[in-house]
Amino acid sequence: MKDVIEIKFEELEPKINCLDHGFVQLLDCMPRLIRDNEDSADYAISEAARTSYERELKTVTDDKTLIRYLMRHNHTSPLEMIEFKFKMKVPMYICTQIIRHRTASLNILSGRYSVMPEEFYIPAIDDIRMQSKTNTQGSENNLDEHMSDCVISDIKELCKKSFTVYKDFLEAGVAREMARGVLPYNLYTVMYWKIDLKNLLHFINLRSDHHAQKEVQVFSNAILSLIKPIVPWTIDAWEDYSVYRGGMVLTRYEVEAIKNIIDNVPNLYDVPLGEEVDTFKDIEVDSTLEQREWVKKAERLGWV
Amino acid sequence: MKDVIEIKFEELEPKINCLDHGFVQLLDCMPRLIRDNEDSADYAISEAARTSYERELKTVTDDKTLIRYLMRHNHTSPLEMIEFKFKMKVPMYICTQIIRHRTASLNILSGRYSVMPEEFYIPAIDDIRMQSKTNTQGSENNLDEHMSDCVISDIKELCKKSFTVYKDFLEAGVAREMARGVLPYNLYTVMYWKIDLKNLLHFINLRSDHHAQKEVQVFSNAILSLIKPIVPWTIDAWEDYSVYRGGMVLTRYEVEAIKNIIDNVPNLYDVPLGEEVDTFKDIEVDSTLEQREWVKKAERLGWV
Amino acid sequence: MKDVIEIKFEELEPKINCLDHGFVQLLDCMPRLIRDNEDSADYAISEAARTSYERELKTVTDDKTLIRYLMRHNHTSPLEMIEFKFKMKVPMYICTQIIRHRTASLNILSGRYSVMPEEFYIPAIDDIRMQSKTNTQGSENNLDEHMSDCVISDIKELCKKSFTVYKDFLEAGVAREMARGVLPYNLYTVMYWKIDLKNLLHFINLRSDHHAQKEVQVFSNAILSLIKPIVPWTIDAWEDYSVYRGGMVLTRYEVEAIKNIIDNVPNLYDVPLGEEVDTFKDIEVDSTLEQREWVKKAERLGWV
Amino acid sequence: MKDVIEIKFEELEPKINCLDHGFVQLLDCMPRLIRDNEDSADYAISEAARTSYERELKTVTDDKTLIRYLMRHNHTSPLEMIEFKFKMKVPMYICTQIIRHRTASLNILSGRYSVMPEEFYIPAIDDIRMQSKTNTQGSENNLDEHMSDCVISDIKELCKKSFTVYKDFLEAGVAREMARGVLPYNLYTVMYWKIDLKNLLHFINLRSDHHAQKEVQVFSNAILSLIKPIVPWTIDAWEDYSVYRGGMVLTRYEVEAIKNIIDNVPNLYDVPLGEEVDTFKDIEVDSTLEQREWVKKAERLGWV
Repeated sequence: MKDVIEIKFEELEPKINCLDHGFVQLLDCMPRLIRDNEDSADYAISEAARTSYERELKTVTDDKTLIRYLMRHNHTSPLEMIEFKFKMKVPMYICTQIIRHRTASLNILSGRYSVMPEEFYIPAIDDIRMQSKTNTQGSENNLDEHMSDCVISDIKELCKKSFTVYKDFLEAGVAREMARGVLPYNLYTVMYWKIDLKNLLHFINLRSDHHAQKEVQVFSNAILSLIKPIVPWTIDAWEDYSVYRGGMVLTRYEVEAIKNIIDNVPNLYDVPLGEEVDTFKDIEVDSTLEQREWVKKAERLGWV
Repeated sequence: MKDVIEIKFEELEPKINCLDHGFVQLLDCMPRLIRDNEDSADYAISEAARTSYERELKTVTDDKTLIRYLMRHNHTSPLEMIEFKFKMKVPMYICTQIIRHRTASLNILSGRYSVMPEEFYIPAIDDIRMQSKTNTQGSENNLDEHMSDCVISDIKELCKKSFTVYKDFLEAGVAREMARGVLPYNLYTVMYWKIDLKNLLHFINLRSDHHAQKEVQVFSNAILSLIKPIVPWTIDAWEDYSVYRGGMVLTRYEVEAIKNIIDNVPNLYDVPLGEEVDTFKDIEVDSTLEQREWVKKAERLGWV
Repeated sequence: MKDVIEIKFEELEPKINCLDHGFVQLLDCMPRLIRDNEDSADYAISEAARTSYERELKTVTDDKTLIRYLMRHNHTSPLEMIEFKFKMKVPMYICTQIIRHRTASLNILSGRYSVMPEEFYIPAIDDIRMQSKTNTQGSENNLDEHMSDCVISDIKELCKKSFTVYKDFLEAGVAREMARGVLPYNLYTVMYWKIDLKNLLHFINLRSDHHAQKEVQVFSNAILSLIKPIVPWTIDAWEDYSVYRGGMVLTRYEVEAIKNIIDNVPNLYDVPLGEEVDTFKDIEVDSTLEQREWVKKAERLGWV
Repeated sequence: MKDVIEIKFEELEPKINCLDHGFVQLLDCMPRLIRDNEDSADYAISEAARTSYERELKTVTDDKTLIRYLMRHNHTSPLEMIEFKFKMKVPMYICTQIIRHRTASLNILSGRYSVMPEEFYIPAIDDIRMQSKTNTQGSENNLDEHMSDCVISDIKELCKKSFTVYKDFLEAGVAREMARGVLPYNLYTVMYWKIDLKNLLHFINLRSDHHAQKEVQVFSNAILSLIKPIVPWTIDAWEDYSVYRGGMVLTRYEVEAIKNIIDNVPNLYDVPLGEEVDTFKDIEVDSTLEQREWVKKAERLGWV
């Protein structure tokens, strides 16, 4: 089969360690073999997209431009032609977040079949985050070092205690499915996870976002690192266009606010030399939260 | 709107308590209003099924017969026309099992947003099950009463200890998303769950089965009780035809074994009076597990 | 059941005629009964969303604000708690476009079971559109009246001829499943379609967009009209925030271009009175198509 | 990468011609590279299944036995770890049947973007089937040769006529999206189709079944031929256990009927020599259709 070559995994099943005991390992992808005049697996996307237009576009647009067009216009069905399979070791509550992404296939270590291994996620000393004051679901800053030390030793002690009780239960003959009830939520578990590129990018959009729990960001970012060399053009386009990355979404009110500013530009010519003008305009909404969101976007757009 | 009536929920949002603190509550269903010449929501299934045949079958088959036909032949897409919405309080590890059923919609109490309530599943004294010797994933029989007592008090103590640590963490300012890591897996959580009848019956097939963990059977059976008065014809048909209920699936080898027995019947006439014959035949497979499965089915079919 | 009232369907199953013989009919929705202190079905969204935060947010945010927040931040899982069921009569090729939206339940009139009715979509005289020169998949302007007349009479003739052949085949005893092969793609078919609000809004985003085929826009807009009185707050929020409606998405390059303009504002003070300045800036990309897309957005943002 | 070998596609992208112009081509599968001590892609199933039991079962059951166990007990989630990608040319109405299987990814030749090629499915002379008298959705026997000849020439003439009108429309400038409305339903289209093994076997269960339209059986059988060498153990198990293949499903009434017969066996010893006894028993249902279904199964089980 001399006219195909393998996707260049740097190593057979590249693996990135995450947190203290976790990891993400790329077990497989589709396509795994590519034509030797192709650079990456990206071709499988443009190839499928061209089905829609058959003869028409074939000569007009090259693969990279086509993929960028698809990404910019949210024509994402051809992205489903790429598939990835991972093995991951993650804390239970990260696993639960992953399972919520329903368009994926998975097999998870079962506490009914197996004795769970004694591995818990113990945060590092500089990673005990405090509850955010402004964001009900978020965290911010760290506890001071002394407190963090106490928290970590409490976590360790509780995990150890829980696992001892768990083992005692098993020894007493309690069914595994019942005994596991005492194991804490930061226990590590192992899962196989197979997902197509469209749904994986949606996952990364949400889980590499700074609003996501930091622990899941670690895994999401590891996944991103693993797939980037396999579909580089797609990832580049996604970095440029996704509103979770380089792009930005404006609401009707924000469009209106910018329009008001631009419409007002001619008036700026009359401003006396040396005087400063703040061109920024509020959006016309009652919600202070929405107003604050606009301010953040306005800063990225150049207003100070 | 005089020609429709409400689906007769016995009460507004009927609720069944499960385990010590859990429950299943039927919040809503679709259809909720039915024509007043209809007895149940079953009509929404036959109505949709008839779309396929429009004029043709309308007079031939009545609704009940049509539904039974659909169930017998696994033509289940019309079952998707019925939708149910539940509120449930379940232990975390039951929640994880429920999430695995991907064709459903759900919202779950989030340990990132909320302080989790102090409610844990503590098994009853007569429900501490032992690990099954024959079934790696199952349980069987109970621990003796004294041991069960010890197990329960260990569970209670550990849960209490965990929750104290959790509250201490929160008071110290640790982010909720991190603090929850010490909470054990038998913590109760609350979820909204919306699912169509086709996928719900698949759930019940698997989760009311005697191989399922007993705790999830409790919830699955509660769900079944709640939907049965709403789609009685469908549930009747399912009880008669599902291979997880009254039906049975035979493998190629089991079909062959029965055929061999039936073919052999004429020879039975020659059996001397008073002599007994065991007509049972093994199936021709190497696997002893598969052989044992056949024996169990054969017993249900009348062989002893 | 005095504390609930029905969702106020203006009539029992409101119906909007589409094209010449088509229609969309709203058969049912969930919730269908709402509490009498509620105005609309929107409450089912906020109710489910609150599960995530339980106690925390209950008093802070009212329902409308919460729904707007969810829509703005693309937290769309609670939208899945609303379900709609439609009956539609559509041309076959519109049906195919509808089926492509996979997260929905459907039953379609089957040409294997039933004799298809003789109903074809015949475009109106002022709706014979020409192939777009700039958009390979689009149409623009109309054929002149004389040509349109010819086209219509050709369509009519061909449909008539096809249906005669079809009927002849059936009379000769040919199986319906084979005979249907001669029927043209503008034949009407009938379908039941059940879909949740999240997936329905995605459908409307794509199919009410001006890039969509005009015939499917007609059906999509009809659907929108039917659901708007049922979930008015959600639709309002969607009109304000969806990038397919009042909102807008900016790429990394467009963010950069606006930033360059804003950064340049102080220089405007030095512009001699009476002189005009064009503040518009190109984006830094090679693709002329992408440049053109930016120009269109820039116009909406106030640049001329 | 010396410790992996390629999946042995006999040729790079094996292709089976179907009907007159159609085909199924296997473009890719996952896994595509297998370890050199593995014989087939089946290993990816057992590997994922073992995640659930980790240490426990590893030594107990070999891969083939494990896969057979999974298939027998309908534990099909590990089958999702295998993925296939096909290119297919199919008549439009077969395409519609394929799209109905929602858990798959696809891209289809678009009549909006492209001028459709002039290729129609014209049945062969010995394949013009008659409408079944007993099965409203089925066909049986063939028209006589003369009639078949007429039917075929009518189909050809109509297709030719339709395509001429279509081309005339395009030449007159009518938008492709409108012009396609006159094309008949037996027009060929081209699609990419990516689906996992679990969902593909469900497709084959339904579409290779003798109740399916013969034309879709042709494609389904071609697909089966293409995947069999890649996952031979799984296909073997499926042939033995699927109730659409070697297996059989019994209803509650059929289980009861067999039990009645077996219970009655001792009475057979009293039958006078030379006398024949019909041991067969009806099932206790009103439906004659259900009774007939039992008779068919009883025949397979040895009763005449």
